[in-house]
Amino acid sequence: MMKERFILPDGLVYLDGNSLGPLPRGAAARVGTTMELEWGRLAIAGWNRAGWIGQPMALGDRIGRLIGAEPGSVSVGDTLSVKVFQLVAAALAMRPERKVVLSDSGNFPSDLYMADGLAEALGDVQLVVVEPEEIAGRIGPDVAVLMLTEVDYRTGRKHDMAALTRAAHEAGALTVWDLAHSAGALPVELAGAGADFACGCTYKYLNGGPGAPGFAYVAPRHADTARTILQGWLGHAEPFAFEPGYRPAAGAERMRVGTPPILQMAALEAALDIWDEVDVSELRARSIVLSERFIAAVESACPDIALVSPRDPEARGSQVSFRFEHGYAAMQALIAHGVVGDFRAPDIMRFGITPLYLSEEDIDVAAGVIAKVMTERLWDDPAYATRSAVT
Amino acid sequence: MMKERFILPDGLVYLDGNSLGPLPRGAAARVGTTMELEWGRLAIAGWNRAGWIGQPMALGDRIGRLIGAEPGSVSVGDTLSVKVFQLVAAALAMRPERKVVLSDSGNFPSDLYMADGLAEALGDVQLVVVEPEEIAGRIGPDVAVLMLTEVDYRTGRKHDMAALTRAAHEAGALTVWDLAHSAGALPVELAGAGADFACGCTYKYLNGGPGAPGFAYVAPRHADTARTILQGWLGHAEPFAFEPGYRPAAGAERMRVGTPPILQMAALEAALDIWDEVDVSELRARSIVLSERFIAAVESACPDIALVSPRDPEARGSQVSFRFEHGYAAMQALIAHGVVGDFRAPDIMRFGITPLYLSEEDIDVAAGVIAKVMTERLWDDPAYATRSAVT
Repeated sequence: MMKERFILPDGLVYLDGNSLGPLPRGAAARVGTTMELEWGRLAIAGWNRAGWIGQPMALGDRIGRLIGAEPGSVSVGDTLSVKVFQLVAAALAMRPERKVVLSDSGNFPSDLYMADGLAEALGDVQLVVVEPEEIAGRIGPDVAVLMLTEVDYRTGRKHDMAALTRAAHEAGALTVWDLAHSAGALPVELAGAGADFACGCTYKYLNGGPGAPGFAYVAPRHADTARTILQGWLGHAEPFAFEPGYRPAAGAERMRVGTPPILQMAALEAALDIWDEVDVSELRARSIVLSERFIAAVESACPDIALVSPRDPEARGSQVSFRFEHGYAAMQALIAHGVVGDFRAPDIMRFGITPLYLSEEDIDVAAGVIAKVMTERLWDDPAYATRSAVT
Repeated sequence: MMKERFILPDGLVYLDGNSLGPLPRGAAARVGTTMELEWGRLAIAGWNRAGWIGQPMALGDRIGRLIGAEPGSVSVGDTLSVKVFQLVAAALAMRPERKVVLSDSGNFPSDLYMADGLAEALGDVQLVVVEPEEIAGRIGPDVAVLMLTEVDYRTGRKHDMAALTRAAHEAGALTVWDLAHSAGALPVELAGAGADFACGCTYKYLNGGPGAPGFAYVAPRHADTARTILQGWLGHAEPFAFEPGYRPAAGAERMRVGTPPILQMAALEAALDIWDEVDVSELRARSIVLSERFIAAVESACPDIALVSPRDPEARGSQVSFRFEHGYAAMQALIAHGVVGDFRAPDIMRFGITPLYLSEEDIDVAAGVIAKVMTERLWDDPAYATRSAVT
């Protein structure tokens, strides 16, 4: 429990850290230092003297510890969507005789859109999307890449990364795992699972801030053979030689593309200062305790809403989702009454369980408010029916 | 002259705003507000209530004014390298029967690398690179896309955007202009020139800060037909409908990809507050006055270094470059003596002329230091020969 390390929205129980993590207490000062003492005083010299140029790999290693990645195998930059594109392209290029990217309907839409855009551009590649439970049966000799998000953004249903990676490898396919709802949510063992490629974002459980960069993992055994379709200069072996032709950097550094976002990375660094002190297994145990408590309290008080997350905590990420016909209005009512979760179309009310800054008391307060909103039908107010741009 | 609006490195004449612009005076406070009052207090609600979600188009319009773009035709996000990839892919898709991307050897290497990575992935597309002066003669019926950086990053040589765009169109090709060294450096008239696509970065002349985002321009006549290969969810017509299939947003907004960097955009916004007050034609006139003064002073005192920028100011961007065999060491010596420019391999000493915060006096001081370093051979010291990561 490190609640004192965060600035939380005043008067609210914040169950939306799976969408945007809260502000780490030291982050604003850290970014202020980067701006005033580095950008302001050093200007261009900040790239060397303040170490900016090395941040994508330095922060990558600190994220790597949380996801079971080998040192040097993670680089930070771009957005998660761009990283998905880049890694699926890299994996496809390693299986040129195969033409299927396999994914599931529980994947985040942007991952599917990005893979589809790539497939369409390449012309002879096809994105095949099946139901999550059909994945294992669909892996076959035509599959080049198995592209999955480990934890379903709506339901919290968790894939078995090790088993599916093994199945993919037995069929000769490679894997791209999206860890958007895994990194900082539960133990991930990329190396242990034999994952080939992985990516994620840092603004959810990792608390890196709005628009914090993505990251890319390349298994060391592929690091010097994987090619990037996004041949940016900072993934070049010698960016400042300004050679006419592209030569990839060694290892995962080749997945760097353009100039990295130094201010976002300063905020992320402050967030990772907290993560450096966290034991992810202990965090996971706490997440399960809090999630079970939340499910029990909500289910006992609210017969109208149905758990859609797996009941087995081992099969679930660090979120709890319920289905309710009037979910959008109900979530707006909850927010108005001090409990922040979010809504995902068509009817899912989603609550992130983030033990770094949530206590049993927070869970009890939230469950109490949910019970009140549901039993008193407080959601049934026209004020809660109007949708805003981001929900 | 708005020198008081910037925090400049203490005791230095900063002639490197073409690489990284200095810190605008209000930027740190702006980012602090975004972090503490928006991220901290609103958390997820910042996307709607603080207007984060609309920033890529709002800032795009403010940049658009500086580059002669129509309202709604510029979106901010990603890095310049990613935008190059995206726009070249979009243009190629509009000329499916043609297979050549034409560029020149004066283009920034990352642009060439990105186009080459795309061409290689597509298989049947070829990147053809000729000398800058050969471009006009090479435009022909096989060319799908003319991809050029308007101002050469080494020499400052400026292409004639209107003439080359016209030539490209006459040959049936489309244009992708990189404005890295144009936006905020000189008047650009994208609409006037009939440009099809353009992109740029915001950390150079625009002073958006280290790792500030890129931008993409799509001519309104193409806005609803151009397709993006990077089908990110925030370029979707309804991102929060989470539809299984991609439907592009209207206009240039479809070039958005993933979650935009809110902290970087807050800094950029503070920089654009200054730009909102600038008349780019007046700025250009001042840039020419300062550049001519600089060239005259350096040339008269330093016979050993040769101007490589065009002598005609109309054919030049807002930088002045000299060739010198010992350019790397000489630039290190200059920096040690208080004049910051930069070095570009193999032998180019580069000086950015940025009238927003440079006066005649600054130019005279810089020219005096250069004269001293050259005539006294102060560069001839082993301390200045060791190269660092970023130069």
